[in-house]
Amino acid sequence: MQENRISDAVIRRLPKYYRYLNELEGTGVERVSSSRMSDDMNLNASQIRRDLNCFGGFGQQGYGYQVIRLKQEIMRILGIGSYYKAVIVGAGNIGQALLKYRHFGDEGYHIVAMFDADPHLVGKDVGEMTIRSTEELSDFIEENKVDIGIIAVPKAYAQETANTLVGLGVKGIWNFAPVDVNVGETVSVENVHMSDSLYILSYHMRDKSENG
Amino acid sequence: MQENRISDAVIRRLPKYYRYLNELEGTGVERVSSSRMSDDMNLNASQIRRDLNCFGGFGQQGYGYQVIRLKQEIMRILGIGSYYKAVIVGAGNIGQALLKYRHFGDEGYHIVAMFDADPHLVGKDVGEMTIRSTEELSDFIEENKVDIGIIAVPKAYAQETANTLVGLGVKGIWNFAPVDVNVGETVSVENVHMSDSLYILSYHMRDKSENG
Repeated sequence: MQENRISDAVIRRLPKYYRYLNELEGTGVERVSSSRMSDDMNLNASQIRRDLNCFGGFGQQGYGYQVIRLKQEIMRILGIGSYYKAVIVGAGNIGQALLKYRHFGDEGYHIVAMFDADPHLVGKDVGEMTIRSTEELSDFIEENKVDIGIIAVPKAYAQETANTLVGLGVKGIWNFAPVDVNVGETVSVENVHMSDSLYILSYHMRDKSENG
Repeated sequence: MQENRISDAVIRRLPKYYRYLNELEGTGVERVSSSRMSDDMNLNASQIRRDLNCFGGFGQQGYGYQVIRLKQEIMRILGIGSYYKAVIVGAGNIGQALLKYRHFGDEGYHIVAMFDADPHLVGKDVGEMTIRSTEELSDFIEENKVDIGIIAVPKAYAQETANTLVGLGVKGIWNFAPVDVNVGETVSVENVHMSDSLYILSYHMRDKSENG
């Protein structure tokens, strides 16, 4: 398939295009030129054309891109709007914040259960969901064909939790513990490092104050 | 200064180098070659050499990089270890999770207060901090010379909160509301989109299942 040749750098920019096209669609815009995208998104217009050409694009000279069609193609490539079942392990603040963020479900990422090892948390309700004991994790995942394991446990338990989830057959790990977890070749992982954007922020603050 | 020419793409990779070098230092490693970094970090060795050369690097043929010196240089560029004061606006799950993540303070990003508009939350303690009313925001920021405003309010209030913080003189906005906020030229902003890494994850899951 053609998109197999899309580079990782382009893939990493696709979510930004998706969010932008979503906003445009919401305001009723049907077509958009690469130069308008360039202005709105702060990206170079020729880079935008190169990026979108990677998967066939839909731009026409003097006409631009069809917003809905381009958005749908990007969704298809990323897997947005497919049906994924996810569980959250760790019912602390991060776990609960992720559970409450309803937007994931609208996009096809369905959080079907949340687990914690702490007996004080097990049995408590968060929204419409009851926190389950991690002792139930194995049975639950086997019965429910879970695709994605979301790790929101403390750093010290992150790798062990990843191992358990992979052993139970999940295909993707979304890790919020502040340490990279490693998984085998057959499983995908995204380690989220929230601090990284804070470092980038302080770089830009420093850069502006020095070169203002 | 030389690092002004560092491209944004390189800057975005520096946090990853920083985390890696931190781990290495923690295990007592003093020198590292670009080929070992390449294996450990899953990056191309020549890209690593190009990246690190952007700010003078410290690599020597057959000797490698001095771990501590390279880490300190990256910290200096990013502003890690400087002294920043930050406030969190929005004391929900995300706000509380950020407050409890002590690591920020160790790296020089000090969260000095947390605010919320909800009278049910104002006055409550989170760890050693008491949630303040957003009515106090203006006085607090003026008295305490706050550098960074962290936005953890619902989407609908994000831009308004950013405007307030910028008006009060903060130099950086770290935004966790699921919508981009815009600020003037003199202020830096990082909009954190947690969903983006979920999209990337489902891309890789789909890619693996189709291409084994």
